Amino acid sequence: MVPKHLISPLAPSNFPRLPVIDGLRLATAGCRIKRTDRDDVLLVEFDPGTTVAGVLTRSKMTSAPVDWCRKNLPGGQAQALLVNSGNANAFTGSKGQVTVEEIANAISENLTCRPSRVFMASTGVIGEYLPSETITSAMNILGDQLADVNNSKTWEAAASAILTTDTFPKGATASASINGTRVNIVGIAKGSGMISPDMSTMLSFIFTDAAIGSEVLQDMLSDANLRTFNSITVDSDTSTSDTVLLFATGSAGNVEVDQASAPDLKDFRSALEAVMCDLAHQIVRDGEGASKFITINVTGAEDERGAKVIALAIANSPLVKTAIAGEDANWGRIVMAVGKAGELANRDKLAIRIGGIEIAANGEAVKGYEEAPVTKHMKGQEVNIDVDVGVANGDDAGSATVWTCDLTHGYISINADYRS
Amino acid sequence: MVPKHLISPLAPSNFPRLPVIDGLRLATAGCRIKRTDRDDVLLVEFDPGTTVAGVLTRSKMTSAPVDWCRKNLPGGQAQALLVNSGNANAFTGSKGQVTVEEIANAISENLTCRPSRVFMASTGVIGEYLPSETITSAMNILGDQLADVNNSKTWEAAASAILTTDTFPKGATASASINGTRVNIVGIAKGSGMISPDMSTMLSFIFTDAAIGSEVLQDMLSDANLRTFNSITVDSDTSTSDTVLLFATGSAGNVEVDQASAPDLKDFRSALEAVMCDLAHQIVRDGEGASKFITINVTGAEDERGAKVIALAIANSPLVKTAIAGEDANWGRIVMAVGKAGELANRDKLAIRIGGIEIAANGEAVKGYEEAPVTKHMKGQEVNIDVDVGVANGDDAGSATVWTCDLTHGYISINADYRS
Repeated sequence: MVPKHLISPLAPSNFPRLPVIDGLRLATAGCRIKRTDRDDVLLVEFDPGTTVAGVLTRSKMTSAPVDWCRKNLPGGQAQALLVNSGNANAFTGSKGQVTVEEIANAISENLTCRPSRVFMASTGVIGEYLPSETITSAMNILGDQLADVNNSKTWEAAASAILTTDTFPKGATASASINGTRVNIVGIAKGSGMISPDMSTMLSFIFTDAAIGSEVLQDMLSDANLRTFNSITVDSDTSTSDTVLLFATGSAGNVEVDQASAPDLKDFRSALEAVMCDLAHQIVRDGEGASKFITINVTGAEDERGAKVIALAIANSPLVKTAIAGEDANWGRIVMAVGKAGELANRDKLAIRIGGIEIAANGEAVKGYEEAPVTKHMKGQEVNIDVDVGVANGDDAGSATVWTCDLTHGYISINADYRS
Repeated sequence: MVPKHLISPLAPSNFPRLPVIDGLRLATAGCRIKRTDRDDVLLVEFDPGTTVAGVLTRSKMTSAPVDWCRKNLPGGQAQALLVNSGNANAFTGSKGQVTVEEIANAISENLTCRPSRVFMASTGVIGEYLPSETITSAMNILGDQLADVNNSKTWEAAASAILTTDTFPKGATASASINGTRVNIVGIAKGSGMISPDMSTMLSFIFTDAAIGSEVLQDMLSDANLRTFNSITVDSDTSTSDTVLLFATGSAGNVEVDQASAPDLKDFRSALEAVMCDLAHQIVRDGEGASKFITINVTGAEDERGAKVIALAIANSPLVKTAIAGEDANWGRIVMAVGKAGELANRDKLAIRIGGIEIAANGEAVKGYEEAPVTKHMKGQEVNIDVDVGVANGDDAGSATVWTCDLTHGYISINADYRS
């Protein structure tokens, strides 16, 4: 639906082939919330017994659906998920809360489940009232459409219905073994860098047929989130609606593991993180105006937390991001960003590599480093920056990797040349 | 020197008339550190007995001159100040430290004072070695030129010699009474938003003929700094070299006040803050690509600190800054920025005014607010945003004001279209 010339140059060439996840059914509908030319509501129905875990925005200005999820997540059980694009139902006062309750009630009647097992997320313009009828009026259409088959086509329809200013739908999959039983994971996401003319959002919904209790599920989701969705940034802005929900239907029939740390879950943990990492990268690749996908790896820090603060300071620095947009290996700006992070860093041991070439070491420029491969690297679509901050060594050292995109005229055009 | 079409549209029309400050002498020289078409070194000689206070960057990647100032500030006495533009002498390893020592020694010999009383600041490209001879070779020229008269013309020459990518020189003045004695304050500054193609810096040097002990001076400088230079932001980047130094020659002959809290200093405190505020605003007005001067006032917060964190979150949000560049009263982005600040804020009592018009209150949009005056306000060069976060009332409530500029294509052009 997005004209080809507007699709991000960093987009993957195809939507991936996503497998069936037993125990859930998908439906989408066009409710004309903002756009009239495409589906903007996604309904997922889960088999009874499906468990749920979630990670929600840290914003103090949460949307009504985020408040609703926060209230109901401790129950650990899900029977439905409803997502709409085009209106975030955020900053809509008490009316926003009523909308959420009315939608939950309508779904609970239609699918015969408790309202507290209906999860919700909304993305789009904020501060505009969203009447519940806009969505509940489509309940019959959605209910009729719920199919037993979820395949690549229905997954792509689902991934498309939740988009706002994204230029491509985002999906990922992986499989794992739990005690000898094969289980599948499928994830979809939206986000054009946590940002958009309508103040959009990062949403991701992940589904597995594994049987996993909600507490164990929550532990695995929160842990993987640190190194995936919480390790990306486009412009440092945080939405009122950011939501990641993970649903486990249990249809695969594996023996349940009740310890989050159990070795039996190691493979699943890796697969979950791989799906989340893939989706997180796709969001960065769809960052507004992005022309470069940037990986920033910080080592030698006091601890993992400190490394991540420094990595994010580099990733969020407008000076670093514009230098990369200009294909300029301006490592002085990286030094500046390390300095402003406020975390322990040893100036006189600092080392910086761009595209694997060491260009600064021991607190000063490396004399006569090879400029040609660095220049070539900067001209590519993937830019790798490695910074060792020289505080700790070996096993004691903290490290972190974050991903971001560059800051270009495209970003300004999308966000400043627009009028609400 | 800057072509007229490149001068910031927010620049004041003239360099202000600055008065003589007795007890100091100014000289500038062209040392061709980077540019060959203008003076790039400023030397100030102070009468013995001049006291000094300073505020230095919080960066962990400090420049050699910043390290030098930090070491010598506790002495509280100054006899010279040397500032160069064109090279920041930052990230230059131990050689950078040697340069600073050699320059201090040359000045101390020439002016017959201790090296520890020579203060220094450098701004410009980082990571490039600055041989001391570049500057010490001009010592005779500078020494000969030191004149007893510092007037508007010499102040303007001084303010111009310290510039990098600034588009206009920055000066401000005020006078105050201490126990019936009239004293003058003059300040100069440079900075194009803490940022520039060469990673420039915010520098400011303030001079007074008042007699004030260094501890009292430091207290007043640090306090005023919170609400002036530390309350501006262009792009959230912090330099390796940010330096503010305040010198008091004592020539006015007022009776010294030895308590920072003494009522006798109230007038001086106000005048000092006025000079610093004026200079801080000029830096924002010279922010790279700036087309709007933005004042953000946050009230109703838990405390002053919380209010300032929220105000800076709004001021640094790329989404807010691009919306203002687009003359779009997109208050949803302000709500987002308040939410991401992480400080206490009551979503359901939040109120936002733009140009004095209330457009959001009690956690939702104000129905039918007057759009015409808001639209007109957004089209002007000065944009005022008031946010009450609804946590506290009256005397208990914390408030803070910060100043910033918008984020435009001009910023991207200056920082991305450039090659180092």
